[in-house]
Amino acid sequence: MKTKRIDVFLLPTLLGETDLSGGVAVVIDVLRATTTITHAIAHKADCVVPLLNVDDAKEEGARQPAALLGGERGGQKIDGFDLGNSPAEYPESTVAGKKILFTTTNGTKAMQACRTAQDIYIAAFVNLTAVCNQLADCPHIFVVCAGTTGEITREDVLLAGAIVDVLSADALKPIELNDQAQIAADAWLEAKTGLTATTLADRLKKSRGGRNVLRLGLDNDIDIAAALDKFDVVPKLNPKTWEIRDSRNPAP
Amino acid sequence: MKTKRIDVFLLPTLLGETDLSGGVAVVIDVLRATTTITHAIAHKADCVVPLLNVDDAKEEGARQPAALLGGERGGQKIDGFDLGNSPAEYPESTVAGKKILFTTTNGTKAMQACRTAQDIYIAAFVNLTAVCNQLADCPHIFVVCAGTTGEITREDVLLAGAIVDVLSADALKPIELNDQAQIAADAWLEAKTGLTATTLADRLKKSRGGRNVLRLGLDNDIDIAAALDKFDVVPKLNPKTWEIRDSRNPAP
Repeated sequence: MKTKRIDVFLLPTLLGETDLSGGVAVVIDVLRATTTITHAIAHKADCVVPLLNVDDAKEEGARQPAALLGGERGGQKIDGFDLGNSPAEYPESTVAGKKILFTTTNGTKAMQACRTAQDIYIAAFVNLTAVCNQLADCPHIFVVCAGTTGEITREDVLLAGAIVDVLSADALKPIELNDQAQIAADAWLEAKTGLTATTLADRLKKSRGGRNVLRLGLDNDIDIAAALDKFDVVPKLNPKTWEIRDSRNPAP
Repeated sequence: MKTKRIDVFLLPTLLGETDLSGGVAVVIDVLRATTTITHAIAHKADCVVPLLNVDDAKEEGARQPAALLGGERGGQKIDGFDLGNSPAEYPESTVAGKKILFTTTNGTKAMQACRTAQDIYIAAFVNLTAVCNQLADCPHIFVVCAGTTGEITREDVLLAGAIVDVLSADALKPIELNDQAQIAADAWLEAKTGLTATTLADRLKKSRGGRNVLRLGLDNDIDIAAALDKFDVVPKLNPKTWEIRDSRNPAP
């Protein structure tokens, strides 16, 4: 059996010159991009296309009038877009069967930073166990936290640590971890004692990302993001087609 | 009473455009620069002058023949230098009364990144309590981890978290923390349970910096670095004179 290795990066910029081509990547932006994308895919959106710029999304939207435009700038819905970045805006009645052209401040950049990986998975607390099951047989995993406008945020680090913790507990022999993975696991283990959705939501509210979301009056988004294992679904970004689909149903 | 604030940076590069001019800085490079500097100052060296380049140190050494040259490249003593970067090389019999021209790979860069702060303190596990006492009345503290060749290292993060933990426990009201400070505190709290010098040394040996030191056969340096509160001394780097002296005796 090959040794398993997990490298966590607390920000996309900390990837530096790291070569991801031999492994799979996991992108984390708990508040709120990866939580929202997981809601969209769980609610049967056909696919989510992550785009870096608002203008790109609008141009693409003009070419594909059946697609929905979703995302945020400064945390708020973009003028002319159909949907913002709140998971509650992505129910099945809105998104089922739809393509969603999606742009957010931090999450999309983190996905771009992973584009040389073999596969890119989208992780949130709402699909933690499903993501860990998906990763069980991957020998080399790169977990990339989106952060908030270039700064490390605790909510992303906690989820990275939770992934390390679950995979370590399930592994038959010790997993090799970089120091950032060890630190993330420490943070999660400290949070895990007596953990409930309420205590997790409280922690998320204190993080940098959480404070930003509270400032926008979107407290409910944080409670939704803290609902551990709400979905048994793993959104998977195909680096070639640049579409995010349900990993169980990757082809259109 | 003013609110106290601690901002931790897990690497010097994460400071970005942060303005340190309103606060005091604490530099951490547990394995081994700040541990070794603390030994030198505790053992009555007159001062330590941190220099970025080997050539600068040699030129300065030629101008000041009474000074000792100390430091490392690739973890090892530099050709023509008097001393390496092991704390054991800096006993009182060698360093008392001496000026030490000192260059290391990571620690010196971290000090340079802090040069706009009002004061710069040098922290290690060997002087943890002394450093925290020194910081007790500082309203805004920037704690900067040196890391190892651009990567976050757990041993520095653990000490940053220990400083946050001690100052939070002593404070009369909650301290404002950035997310990196919260994460560092999480890591320390996870390590702190049942902590002894032996368990701390074991953790340090597993970190990136620790593995580098072990590879060089310098296990003893890690045991020395894990000796909590061995000294009641705080080395202080004067940003104007660029000399590190005992904070109780800052003027030459």
